[in-house]
Amino acid sequence: MQIAFTKMHGLGNSYIYINTFDVSLAGQDLSVLAKKVSDPNTGIGSDGLILITPSEQADVGMRMFNKDGSEGKTCGNGLRCVAKYAFDNQLVTTRTFTIETRAGNVSAEILGEGRVAEQVTIDMGPPYLQRKQIPMVGVNLERIVNEPFPVGDQTLRITAVSMGNPHAVFFVDNIELAPLYELGPIITNDERFPESVNVEFVEVVNENELNFRVWERGSGVTQACGTGACAAAVAAILNKLAKRSEDIVVHLAGGDLIINWSKDNHVWMTGPAMTTVQGQFIL
Amino acid sequence: MQIAFTKMHGLGNSYIYINTFDVSLAGQDLSVLAKKVSDPNTGIGSDGLILITPSEQADVGMRMFNKDGSEGKTCGNGLRCVAKYAFDNQLVTTRTFTIETRAGNVSAEILGEGRVAEQVTIDMGPPYLQRKQIPMVGVNLERIVNEPFPVGDQTLRITAVSMGNPHAVFFVDNIELAPLYELGPIITNDERFPESVNVEFVEVVNENELNFRVWERGSGVTQACGTGACAAAVAAILNKLAKRSEDIVVHLAGGDLIINWSKDNHVWMTGPAMTTVQGQFIL
Repeated sequence: MQIAFTKMHGLGNSYIYINTFDVSLAGQDLSVLAKKVSDPNTGIGSDGLILITPSEQADVGMRMFNKDGSEGKTCGNGLRCVAKYAFDNQLVTTRTFTIETRAGNVSAEILGEGRVAEQVTIDMGPPYLQRKQIPMVGVNLERIVNEPFPVGDQTLRITAVSMGNPHAVFFVDNIELAPLYELGPIITNDERFPESVNVEFVEVVNENELNFRVWERGSGVTQACGTGACAAAVAAILNKLAKRSEDIVVHLAGGDLIINWSKDNHVWMTGPAMTTVQGQFIL
Repeated sequence: MQIAFTKMHGLGNSYIYINTFDVSLAGQDLSVLAKKVSDPNTGIGSDGLILITPSEQADVGMRMFNKDGSEGKTCGNGLRCVAKYAFDNQLVTTRTFTIETRAGNVSAEILGEGRVAEQVTIDMGPPYLQRKQIPMVGVNLERIVNEPFPVGDQTLRITAVSMGNPHAVFFVDNIELAPLYELGPIITNDERFPESVNVEFVEVVNENELNFRVWERGSGVTQACGTGACAAAVAAILNKLAKRSEDIVVHLAGGDLIINWSKDNHVWMTGPAMTTVQGQFIL
Protein backbone atom coordinates (compact mmCIF):
# COMPACT_ATOMS: atom_id res chain seq x y z
CA MET A 1 0.00 0.00 0.00
CA GLN A 2 1.26 3.48 -0.85
CA ILE A 3 0.29 6.75 0.85
CA ALA A 4 0.96 10.09 -0.85
CA PHE A 5 2.65 12.56 1.51
CA THR A 6 4.45 15.88 1.63
CA LYS A 7 7.26 16.55 4.08
CA MET A 8 7.47 20.13 5.28
CA HIS A 9 9.28 22.01 8.00
CA GLY A 10 9.12 25.32 9.82
CA LEU A 11 12.56 26.31 11.17
CA GLY A 12 13.59 22.64 11.13
CA ASN A 13 10.48 21.38 12.99
CA SER A 14 9.41 18.77 10.42
CA TYR A 15 6.26 16.73 9.93
CA ILE A 16 4.89 14.34 7.36
CA TYR A 17 1.73 15.92 5.93
CA ILE A 18 -1.05 13.80 4.48
CA ASN A 19 -3.89 15.46 2.60
CA THR A 20 -7.01 13.55 3.59
CA PHE A 21 -9.08 15.44 1.01
CA ASP A 22 -7.36 13.12 -1.50
CA VAL A 23 -5.97 10.22 0.53
CA SER A 24 -8.15 7.82 2.53
CA LEU A 25 -6.65 6.61 5.80
CA ALA A 26 -9.67 4.44 6.62
CA GLY A 27 -8.60 1.45 8.65
CA GLN A 28 -5.24 2.99 9.58
CA ASP A 29 -4.26 3.31 13.24
CA LEU A 30 -3.07 6.93 13.11
CA SER A 31 -0.91 6.58 16.20
CA VAL A 32 0.92 3.62 14.66
CA LEU A 33 1.19 5.43 11.32
CA ALA A 34 2.72 8.49 13.04
CA LYS A 35 5.39 6.33 14.67
CA LYS A 36 6.11 4.56 11.38
CA VAL A 37 6.54 7.62 9.19
CA SER A 38 8.58 9.47 11.84
CA ASP A 39 11.22 6.73 12.19
CA PRO A 40 14.28 7.81 10.17
CA ASN A 41 15.51 4.19 9.93
CA THR A 42 12.48 2.25 8.76
CA GLY A 43 10.14 5.12 7.80
CA ILE A 44 10.70 8.63 6.48
CA GLY A 45 12.00 10.68 9.42
CA SER A 46 10.17 13.57 11.11
CA ASP A 47 8.90 15.02 14.40
CA GLY A 48 5.46 13.53 13.72
CA LEU A 49 2.48 13.31 11.41
CA ILE A 50 -0.02 16.04 10.52
CA LEU A 51 -3.26 15.35 8.67
CA ILE A 52 -4.75 18.15 6.58
CA THR A 53 -8.47 17.50 6.67
CA PRO A 54 -11.80 18.90 5.57
CA SER A 55 -13.45 20.98 8.33
CA GLU A 56 -17.03 22.06 9.03
CA GLN A 57 -16.00 24.95 11.29
CA ALA A 58 -13.05 26.35 9.37
CA ASP A 59 -11.62 26.49 5.83
CA VAL A 60 -9.34 23.53 6.52
CA GLY A 61 -8.59 21.30 9.51
CA MET A 62 -5.47 19.76 11.01
CA ARG A 63 -4.78 16.85 13.36
CA MET A 64 -1.26 16.36 14.67
CA PHE A 65 0.47 13.30 16.11
CA ASN A 66 3.86 13.37 17.78
CA LYS A 67 6.57 10.89 16.85
CA ASP A 68 5.69 8.81 19.92
CA GLY A 69 2.17 8.34 18.50
CA SER A 70 0.41 10.65 20.97
CA GLU A 71 -2.04 13.20 19.56
CA GLY A 72 -1.22 16.87 20.15
CA LYS A 73 -3.52 19.86 20.10
CA THR A 74 -1.64 22.27 17.88
CA CYS A 75 1.85 23.37 16.83
CA GLY A 76 2.97 26.83 15.72
CA ASN A 77 5.53 25.62 13.18
CA GLY A 78 3.04 23.02 11.91
CA LEU A 79 0.28 25.62 11.47
CA ARG A 80 2.47 27.66 9.11
CA CYS A 81 3.10 24.52 7.04
CA VAL A 82 -0.60 23.56 7.00
CA ALA A 83 -1.37 27.09 5.79
CA LYS A 84 1.27 26.88 3.05
CA TYR A 85 0.02 23.45 1.97
CA ALA A 86 -3.60 24.59 1.83
CA PHE A 87 -2.67 27.69 -0.17
CA ASP A 88 -0.14 26.07 -2.55
CA ASN A 89 -2.54 23.21 -3.29
CA GLN A 90 -5.58 25.45 -3.64
CA LEU A 91 -7.55 23.86 -0.81
CA VAL A 92 -8.38 27.50 -0.03
CA THR A 93 -9.03 30.31 -2.48
CA THR A 94 -8.03 33.36 -0.43
CA ARG A 95 -4.82 34.51 1.27
CA THR A 96 -6.49 34.74 4.67
CA PHE A 97 -8.37 31.75 6.01
CA THR A 98 -9.01 29.69 9.14
CA ILE A 99 -7.58 26.38 10.33
CA GLU A 100 -9.41 24.11 12.78
CA THR A 101 -7.20 22.54 15.47
CA ARG A 102 -7.96 20.58 18.63
CA ALA A 103 -7.11 23.81 20.49
CA GLY A 104 -9.68 25.82 18.51
CA ASN A 105 -9.83 27.70 15.22
CA VAL A 106 -6.83 29.75 14.15
CA SER A 107 -6.49 32.53 11.56
CA ALA A 108 -3.74 32.30 8.95
CA GLU A 109 -2.48 34.74 6.33
CA ILE A 110 -0.17 34.08 3.38
CA LEU A 111 2.17 37.05 2.96
CA GLY A 112 3.42 38.48 -0.33
CA GLU A 113 1.92 38.09 -3.78
CA GLY A 114 3.32 34.76 -5.01
CA ARG A 115 1.42 31.61 -6.00
CA VAL A 116 3.62 29.63 -3.60
CA ALA A 117 3.63 30.60 0.08
CA GLU A 118 6.96 31.48 1.66
CA GLN A 119 6.08 33.44 4.78
CA VAL A 120 2.95 32.80 6.80
CA THR A 121 1.35 34.73 9.66
CA ILE A 122 -0.59 32.79 12.29
CA ASP A 123 -2.82 34.18 15.03
CA MET A 124 -1.46 32.49 18.13
CA GLY A 125 -4.26 33.88 20.33
CA PRO A 126 -3.97 35.91 23.53
CA PRO A 127 -1.25 35.37 26.13
CA TYR A 128 -2.41 34.22 29.58
CA LEU A 129 -0.55 36.04 32.32
CA GLN A 130 -2.10 35.27 35.71
CA ARG A 131 -0.24 32.88 37.99
CA LYS A 132 -3.05 30.33 37.98
CA GLN A 133 -3.23 30.48 34.19
CA ILE A 134 0.48 29.62 33.71
CA PRO A 135 0.05 27.52 36.01
CA MET A 136 2.62 28.35 38.67
CA VAL A 137 2.28 27.53 42.36
CA GLY A 138 1.41 30.50 44.64
CA VAL A 139 -1.49 32.43 46.10
CA ASN A 140 -1.91 35.63 44.14
CA LEU A 141 -3.58 36.18 40.79
CA GLU A 142 -1.12 38.85 39.66
CA ARG A 143 1.24 38.66 36.72
CA ILE A 144 4.70 37.18 37.25
CA VAL A 145 7.00 39.82 35.80
CA ASN A 146 10.68 40.05 36.75
CA GLU A 147 9.96 38.22 40.00
CA PRO A 148 12.87 36.75 42.05
CA PHE A 149 13.18 33.02 41.32
CA PRO A 150 15.67 31.09 43.50
CA VAL A 151 17.31 28.08 41.81
CA GLY A 152 19.99 26.29 43.82
CA ASP A 153 22.30 28.95 45.26
CA GLN A 154 21.42 31.67 42.75
CA THR A 155 18.35 33.85 42.26
CA LEU A 156 17.17 34.47 38.71
CA ARG A 157 14.34 36.78 37.70
CA ILE A 158 11.39 35.15 35.98
CA THR A 159 8.64 36.39 33.70
CA ALA A 160 5.97 33.73 33.14
CA VAL A 161 3.64 33.57 30.12
CA SER A 162 1.17 30.95 28.93
CA MET A 163 0.44 30.73 25.20
CA GLY A 164 -1.83 27.76 25.92
CA ASN A 165 1.33 26.07 27.22
CA PRO A 166 3.53 27.40 30.05
CA HIS A 167 6.73 29.37 29.51
CA ALA A 168 9.33 30.63 32.01
CA VAL A 169 11.35 33.46 30.44
CA PHE A 170 14.72 34.60 31.84
CA PHE A 171 16.55 37.59 30.37
CA VAL A 172 20.34 37.26 30.04
CA ASP A 173 23.11 39.63 28.93
CA ASN A 174 24.65 37.20 26.43
CA ILE A 175 22.71 34.34 24.82
CA GLU A 176 25.90 32.35 24.18
CA LEU A 177 26.56 32.21 27.93
CA ALA A 178 22.98 31.33 28.95
CA PRO A 179 22.89 28.29 31.30
CA LEU A 180 20.53 26.39 28.95
CA TYR A 181 21.90 22.89 29.48
CA GLU A 182 22.63 23.53 33.16
CA LEU A 183 19.32 25.04 34.30
CA GLY A 184 16.89 23.98 31.54
CA PRO A 185 16.42 20.43 32.87
CA ILE A 186 16.21 21.67 36.48
CA ILE A 187 13.67 24.47 35.95
CA THR A 188 11.44 22.41 33.62
CA ASN A 189 10.99 19.91 36.48
CA ASP A 190 10.71 22.53 39.24
CA GLU A 191 7.75 21.81 41.49
CA ARG A 192 6.60 25.42 41.26
CA PHE A 193 5.25 24.41 37.80
CA PRO A 194 2.64 21.69 38.33
CA GLU A 195 2.34 21.09 34.53
CA SER A 196 6.10 21.45 33.95
CA VAL A 197 7.32 24.45 31.93
CA ASN A 198 9.19 25.44 28.79
CA VAL A 199 12.36 27.31 29.76
CA GLU A 200 13.53 30.23 27.62
CA PHE A 201 16.65 32.37 27.88
CA VAL A 202 16.38 35.65 26.01
CA GLU A 203 18.94 38.35 25.19
CA VAL A 204 17.56 41.74 24.21
CA VAL A 205 19.53 42.96 21.17
CA ASN A 206 17.35 46.07 20.87
CA GLU A 207 13.67 46.79 21.33
CA ASN A 208 12.81 45.08 18.05
CA GLU A 209 15.17 42.12 18.22
CA LEU A 210 15.66 39.22 20.65
CA ASN A 211 18.09 36.28 20.75
CA PHE A 212 16.38 33.15 22.00
CA ARG A 213 17.22 29.63 23.21
CA VAL A 214 14.75 27.09 24.53
CA TRP A 215 14.56 23.96 26.64
CA GLU A 216 11.17 22.44 25.68
CA ARG A 217 9.31 20.42 28.29
CA GLY A 218 9.48 16.76 27.34
CA SER A 219 11.96 17.39 24.51
CA GLY A 220 14.98 19.29 25.83
CA VAL A 221 16.87 21.74 23.62
CA THR A 222 15.15 22.23 20.23
CA GLN A 223 15.89 24.39 17.19
CA ALA A 224 12.63 26.32 17.36
CA CYS A 225 9.56 26.76 19.53
CA GLY A 226 6.86 29.00 18.07
CA THR A 227 4.89 29.53 21.30
CA GLY A 228 8.21 30.13 23.11
CA ALA A 229 9.11 32.93 20.69
CA CYS A 230 5.66 34.47 21.34
CA ALA A 231 6.19 34.18 25.11
CA ALA A 232 9.64 35.79 24.82
CA ALA A 233 8.24 38.80 22.95
CA VAL A 234 5.34 39.18 25.39
CA ALA A 235 7.79 38.94 28.33
CA ALA A 236 10.02 41.61 26.77
CA ILE A 237 7.02 43.94 26.41
CA LEU A 238 5.88 43.28 30.00
CA ASN A 239 9.40 44.24 31.14
CA LYS A 240 9.35 47.39 28.96
CA LEU A 241 12.26 46.05 26.92
CA ALA A 242 10.14 46.05 23.72
CA LYS A 243 6.94 47.71 22.52
CA ARG A 244 3.37 46.53 22.12
CA SER A 245 2.02 46.36 18.53
CA GLU A 246 5.48 46.48 16.98
CA ASP A 247 7.19 43.68 15.05
CA ILE A 248 9.83 41.93 17.16
CA VAL A 249 12.31 39.67 15.36
CA VAL A 250 13.14 36.62 17.46
CA HIS A 251 16.35 34.84 16.45
CA LEU A 252 15.93 31.12 17.25
CA ALA A 253 18.60 28.47 16.65
CA GLY A 254 16.63 27.26 13.59
CA GLY A 255 15.93 30.71 12.10
CA ASP A 256 13.87 33.84 12.64
CA LEU A 257 10.26 34.47 13.63
CA ILE A 258 8.53 37.86 13.73
CA ILE A 259 6.21 38.31 16.70
CA ASN A 260 3.66 41.08 17.19
CA TRP A 261 1.51 41.37 20.32
CA SER A 262 -1.18 43.53 18.79
CA LYS A 263 -3.79 45.87 20.22
CA ASP A 264 -6.49 43.17 19.92
CA ASN A 265 -4.46 41.28 22.61
CA HIS A 266 -3.63 38.48 20.13
CA VAL A 267 -0.04 37.45 19.42
CA TRP A 268 0.75 37.17 15.71
CA MET A 269 3.63 34.99 14.55
CA THR A 270 5.18 35.27 11.08
CA GLY A 271 7.75 32.85 9.73
CA PRO A 272 8.79 30.53 6.93
CA ALA A 273 7.34 27.21 5.82
CA MET A 274 9.28 24.90 3.49
CA THR A 275 8.40 21.83 1.43
CA THR A 276 11.28 19.32 1.23
CA VAL A 277 9.78 16.11 -0.13
CA GLN A 278 6.81 15.03 -2.19
CA GLY A 279 6.45 11.30 -2.33
CA GLN A 280 4.78 8.00 -1.74
CA PHE A 281 5.28 6.20 1.58
CA ILE A 282 5.28 2.44 1.03
CA LEU A 283 3.63 0.66 3.96
CA MET B 1 15.17 22.00 -8.27
CA GLN B 2 13.77 18.51 -7.64
CA ILE B 3 15.75 15.26 -7.43
CA ALA B 4 13.99 11.89 -7.79
CA PHE B 5 15.03 9.49 -5.03
CA THR B 6 14.13 6.19 -3.42
CA LYS B 7 14.58 5.58 0.29
CA MET B 8 15.48 2.00 1.19
CA HIS B 9 16.74 0.19 4.25
CA GLY B 10 18.34 -3.09 5.20
CA LEU B 11 17.51 -3.99 8.80
CA GLY B 12 16.90 -0.33 9.58
CA ASN B 13 20.16 0.92 8.04
CA SER B 14 18.64 3.48 5.68
CA TYR B 15 19.98 5.48 2.76
CA ILE B 16 18.62 7.83 0.14
CA TYR B 17 19.21 6.19 -3.24
CA ILE B 18 19.56 8.26 -6.40
CA ASN B 19 19.62 6.54 -9.79
CA THR B 20 22.19 8.43 -11.85
CA PHE B 21 21.22 6.47 -14.97
CA ASP B 22 18.17 8.76 -14.99
CA VAL B 23 19.03 11.71 -12.74
CA SER B 24 21.89 14.12 -13.47
CA LEU B 25 23.74 15.40 -10.40
CA ALA B 26 26.10 17.55 -12.48
CA GLY B 27 27.16 20.58 -10.50
CA GLN B 28 26.05 19.10 -7.16
CA ASP B 29 28.53 18.84 -4.31
CA LEU B 30 27.78 15.23 -3.33
CA SER B 31 29.12 15.65 0.19
CA VAL B 32 26.80 18.60 0.80
CA LEU B 33 23.90 16.75 -0.83
CA ALA B 34 24.49 13.73 1.46
CA LYS B 35 24.32 15.95 4.55
CA LYS B 36 21.18 17.69 3.25
CA VAL B 37 19.15 14.58 2.43
CA SER B 38 20.21 12.80 5.65
CA ASP B 39 19.01 15.57 7.99
CA PRO B 40 15.61 14.49 9.40
CA ASN B 41 14.71 18.11 10.23
CA THR B 42 15.43 20.02 7.03
CA GLY B 43 15.96 17.11 4.59
CA ILE B 44 14.59 13.58 4.37
CA GLY B 45 16.30 11.58 7.13
CA SER B 46 18.77 8.69 6.61
CA ASP B 47 22.19 7.29 7.42
CA GLY B 48 23.55 8.74 4.18
CA LEU B 49 23.30 8.90 0.39
CA ILE B 50 24.00 6.12 -2.12
CA LEU B 51 24.28 6.75 -5.85
CA ILE B 52 23.40 3.90 -8.21
CA THR B 53 25.59 4.50 -11.24
CA PRO B 54 26.56 3.05 -14.61
CA SER B 55 29.77 0.98 -14.37
CA GLU B 56 32.37 -0.11 -16.91
CA GLN B 57 33.68 -2.97 -14.75
CA ALA B 58 30.43 -4.39 -13.36
CA ASP B 59 26.72 -4.54 -14.16
CA VAL B 60 25.98 -1.55 -11.95
CA GLY B 61 28.01 0.74 -9.69
CA MET B 62 27.49 2.35 -6.29
CA ARG B 63 29.02 5.30 -4.46
CA MET B 64 28.13 5.86 -0.82
CA PHE B 65 28.32 8.95 1.38
CA ASN B 66 27.81 8.95 5.12
CA LYS B 67 25.49 11.45 6.80
CA ASP B 68 28.52 13.54 7.77
CA GLY B 69 29.31 13.95 4.05
CA SER B 70 32.38 11.66 4.02
CA GLU B 71 32.59 9.07 1.22
CA GLY B 72 32.63 5.42 2.31
CA LYS B 73 33.90 2.40 0.41
CA THR B 74 31.02 -0.02 0.78
CA CYS B 75 28.20 -1.09 3.10
CA GLY B 76 26.69 -4.56 3.43
CA ASN B 77 23.13 -3.36 4.12
CA GLY B 78 23.48 -0.82 1.31
CA LEU B 79 24.68 -3.44 -1.17
CA ARG B 80 21.51 -5.49 -0.67
CA CYS B 81 19.42 -2.39 -1.35
CA VAL B 82 21.46 -1.48 -4.45
CA ALA B 83 20.92 -5.04 -5.72
CA LYS B 84 17.17 -4.82 -5.07
CA TYR B 85 16.97 -1.44 -6.76
CA ALA B 86 18.90 -2.61 -9.84
CA PHE B 87 16.71 -5.73 -10.13
CA ASP B 88 13.32 -4.12 -9.40
CA ASN B 89 14.05 -1.29 -11.85
CA GLN B 90 15.49 -3.58 -14.53
CA LEU B 91 18.91 -1.96 -14.58
CA VAL B 92 20.06 -5.60 -14.76
CA THR B 93 18.40 -8.46 -16.63
CA THR B 94 19.57 -11.48 -14.61
CA ARG B 95 19.15 -12.56 -10.96
CA THR B 96 22.92 -12.75 -10.41
CA PHE B 97 25.07 -9.77 -11.27
CA THR B 98 28.00 -7.66 -10.07
CA ILE B 99 28.16 -4.31 -8.29
CA GLU B 100 31.20 -2.03 -8.46
CA THR B 101 32.16 -0.38 -5.15
CA ARG B 102 35.20 1.60 -4.06
CA ALA B 103 36.28 -1.58 -2.24
CA GLY B 104 36.10 -3.66 -5.46
CA ASN B 105 33.47 -5.58 -7.39
CA VAL B 106 30.90 -7.60 -5.46
CA SER B 107 28.60 -10.44 -6.58
CA ALA B 108 24.88 -10.22 -5.79
CA GLU B 109 22.04 -12.68 -6.17
CA ILE B 110 18.29 -12.04 -5.95
CA LEU B 111 16.64 -14.99 -4.19
CA GLY B 112 13.23 -16.46 -5.00
CA GLU B 113 11.22 -16.14 -8.18
CA GLY B 114 9.37 -12.82 -7.77
CA ARG B 115 9.62 -9.73 -9.95
CA VAL B 116 10.36 -7.67 -6.83
CA ALA B 117 13.40 -8.58 -4.75
CA GLU B 118 12.83 -9.38 -1.07
CA GLN B 119 15.92 -11.32 0.00
CA VAL B 120 19.36 -10.66 -1.46
CA THR B 121 22.64 -12.57 -1.13
CA ILE B 122 25.88 -10.61 -1.27
CA ASP B 123 29.42 -12.00 -1.57
CA MET B 124 31.19 -10.23 1.29
CA GLY B 125 34.60 -11.63 0.26
CA PRO B 126 37.09 -13.58 2.37
CA PRO B 127 37.69 -12.93 6.06
CA TYR B 128 41.19 -11.72 7.04
CA LEU B 129 42.41 -13.46 10.15
CA GLN B 130 46.06 -12.63 10.78
CA ARG B 131 46.86 -10.17 13.53
CA LYS B 132 48.42 -7.66 11.15
CA GLN B 133 45.40 -7.88 8.88
CA ILE B 134 42.92 -6.99 11.62
CA PRO B 135 45.01 -4.87 12.52
CA MET B 136 45.76 -5.59 16.18
CA VAL B 137 48.99 -4.70 17.96
CA GLY B 138 51.36 -7.63 18.63
CA VAL B 139 54.22 -9.56 17.10
CA ASN B 140 52.90 -12.82 15.71
CA LEU B 141 51.07 -13.46 12.44
CA GLU B 142 48.78 -16.11 13.90
CA ARG B 143 45.04 -15.94 14.19
CA ILE B 144 43.50 -14.39 17.29
CA VAL B 145 41.03 -17.05 18.44
CA ASN B 146 39.73 -17.19 22.01
CA GLU B 147 42.77 -15.27 23.21
CA PRO B 148 42.81 -13.74 26.74
CA PHE B 149 42.01 -10.03 26.52
CA PRO B 150 42.37 -8.02 29.73
CA VAL B 151 40.01 -5.03 30.07
CA GLY B 152 40.10 -3.15 33.36
CA ASP B 153 40.02 -5.73 36.15
CA GLN B 154 38.48 -8.52 34.07
CA THR B 155 39.83 -10.76 31.33
CA LEU B 156 37.59 -11.48 28.35
CA ARG B 157 38.38 -13.85 25.49
CA ILE B 158 38.64 -12.30 22.06
CA THR B 159 38.34 -13.64 18.52
CA ALA B 160 39.34 -11.03 15.93
CA VAL B 161 38.19 -10.97 12.31
CA SER B 162 38.58 -8.43 9.53
CA MET B 163 35.92 -8.28 6.81
CA GLY B 164 37.78 -5.35 5.27
CA ASN B 165 37.05 -3.59 8.57
CA PRO B 166 38.14 -4.79 12.03
CA HIS B 167 35.91 -6.74 14.42
CA ALA B 168 36.49 -7.90 18.00
CA VAL B 169 34.08 -10.74 18.85
CA PHE B 170 33.33 -11.78 22.43
CA PHE B 171 31.11 -14.79 23.19
CA VAL B 172 28.69 -14.42 26.10
CA ASP B 173 26.23 -16.75 27.82
CA ASN B 174 23.26 -14.36 27.62
CA ILE B 175 23.03 -11.58 25.04
CA GLU B 176 20.68 -9.56 27.26
CA LEU B 177 23.39 -9.32 29.92
CA ALA B 178 26.25 -8.49 27.52
CA PRO B 179 28.21 -5.41 28.72
CA LEU B 180 27.60 -3.60 25.41
CA TYR B 181 27.22 -0.06 26.74
CA GLU B 182 29.84 -0.62 29.45
CA LEU B 183 32.67 -2.13 27.40
CA GLY B 184 31.76 -1.15 23.80
CA PRO B 185 33.08 2.41 24.08
CA ILE B 186 36.19 1.25 25.99
CA ILE B 187 37.22 -1.60 23.67
CA THR B 188 36.55 0.37 20.46
CA ASN B 189 39.14 2.92 21.64
CA ASP B 190 41.60 0.36 23.04
CA GLU B 191 45.13 1.10 21.86
CA ARG B 192 45.60 -2.53 20.85
CA PHE B 193 43.51 -1.61 17.76
CA PRO B 194 45.41 1.08 15.83
CA GLU B 195 42.44 1.58 13.43
CA SER B 196 39.84 1.26 16.22
CA VAL B 197 37.52 -1.77 16.15
CA ASN B 198 33.87 -2.78 15.94
CA VAL B 199 32.89 -4.58 19.15
CA GLU B 200 30.50 -7.54 18.97
CA PHE B 201 28.95 -9.62 21.74
CA VAL B 202 27.61 -12.96 20.54
CA GLU B 203 25.50 -15.62 22.24
CA VAL B 204 25.50 -19.07 20.63
CA VAL B 205 21.90 -20.33 20.57
CA ASN B 206 22.91 -23.47 18.68
CA GLU B 207 25.38 -24.24 15.92
CA ASN B 208 23.15 -22.60 13.30
CA GLU B 209 21.93 -19.61 15.30
CA LEU B 210 23.63 -16.65 17.01
CA ASN B 211 22.30 -13.68 18.98
CA PHE B 212 24.29 -10.53 18.21
CA ARG B 213 24.77 -6.99 19.49
CA VAL B 214 27.25 -4.46 18.16
CA TRP B 215 29.05 -1.26 19.11
CA GLU B 216 30.19 0.16 15.75
CA ARG B 217 33.36 2.22 15.63
CA GLY B 218 32.46 5.87 15.16
CA SER B 219 28.72 5.21 15.62
CA GLY B 220 28.09 3.36 18.90
CA VAL B 221 25.25 0.89 19.26
CA THR B 222 23.44 0.31 15.94
CA GLN B 223 20.53 -1.92 14.88
CA ALA B 224 22.53 -3.90 12.36
CA CYS B 225 26.07 -4.32 11.05
CA GLY B 226 26.41 -6.63 8.03
CA THR B 227 30.19 -7.12 8.26
CA GLY B 228 29.81 -7.64 12.02
CA ALA B 229 27.33 -10.48 11.47
CA CYS B 230 29.83 -12.05 9.03
CA ALA B 231 32.62 -11.66 11.59
CA ALA B 232 30.46 -13.24 14.30
CA ALA B 233 29.73 -16.31 12.16
CA VAL B 234 33.39 -16.68 11.17
CA ALA B 235 34.41 -16.33 14.83
CA ALA B 236 31.88 -19.00 15.86
CA ILE B 237 33.30 -21.38 13.25
CA LEU B 238 36.91 -20.65 14.32
CA ASN B 239 35.86 -21.53 17.89
CA LYS B 240 34.12 -24.73 16.71
CA LEU B 241 30.76 -23.38 17.89
CA ALA B 242 29.33 -23.51 14.34
CA LYS B 243 30.15 -25.24 11.06
CA ARG B 244 31.83 -24.10 7.87
CA SER B 245 29.65 -24.05 4.72
CA GLU B 246 26.42 -24.15 6.69
CA ASP B 247 23.85 -21.37 6.95
CA ILE B 248 24.07 -19.53 10.27
CA VAL B 249 21.17 -17.28 11.24
CA VAL B 250 22.42 -14.17 13.05
CA HIS B 251 19.74 -12.36 15.09
CA LEU B 252 20.61 -8.64 15.10
CA ALA B 253 18.59 -5.96 16.91
CA GLY B 254 17.16 -4.85 13.53
CA GLY B 255 16.36 -8.34 12.20
CA ASP B 256 18.01 -11.50 10.86
CA LEU B 257 20.88 -12.14 8.45
CA ILE B 258 21.95 -15.54 7.17
CA ILE B 259 25.73 -15.97 6.94
CA ASN B 260 27.59 -18.76 5.18
CA TRP B 261 31.40 -19.01 5.18
CA SER B 262 31.66 -21.24 2.15
CA LYS B 263 34.34 -23.59 0.86
CA ASP B 264 35.60 -20.93 -1.58
CA ASN B 265 36.62 -18.96 1.56
CA HIS B 266 34.11 -16.22 0.78
CA VAL B 267 31.49 -15.14 3.31
CA TRP B 268 27.97 -14.92 1.85
CA MET B 269 25.39 -12.73 3.52
CA THR B 270 21.66 -13.06 2.85
CA GLY B 271 19.07 -10.63 4.15
CA PRO B 272 16.16 -8.34 3.39
CA ALA B 273 16.05 -5.06 1.50
CA MET B 274 13.02 -2.76 1.75
CA THR B 275 11.78 0.27 -0.17
CA THR B 276 10.00 2.79 2.07
CA VAL B 277 9.70 5.98 0.01
CA GLN B 278 9.65 7.00 -3.63
CA GLY B 279 9.70 10.72 -4.06
CA GLN B 280 11.11 14.02 -5.16
CA PHE B 281 13.55 15.89 -2.90
CA ILE B 282 13.06 19.63 -3.26
CA LEU B 283 16.38 21.45 -3.04
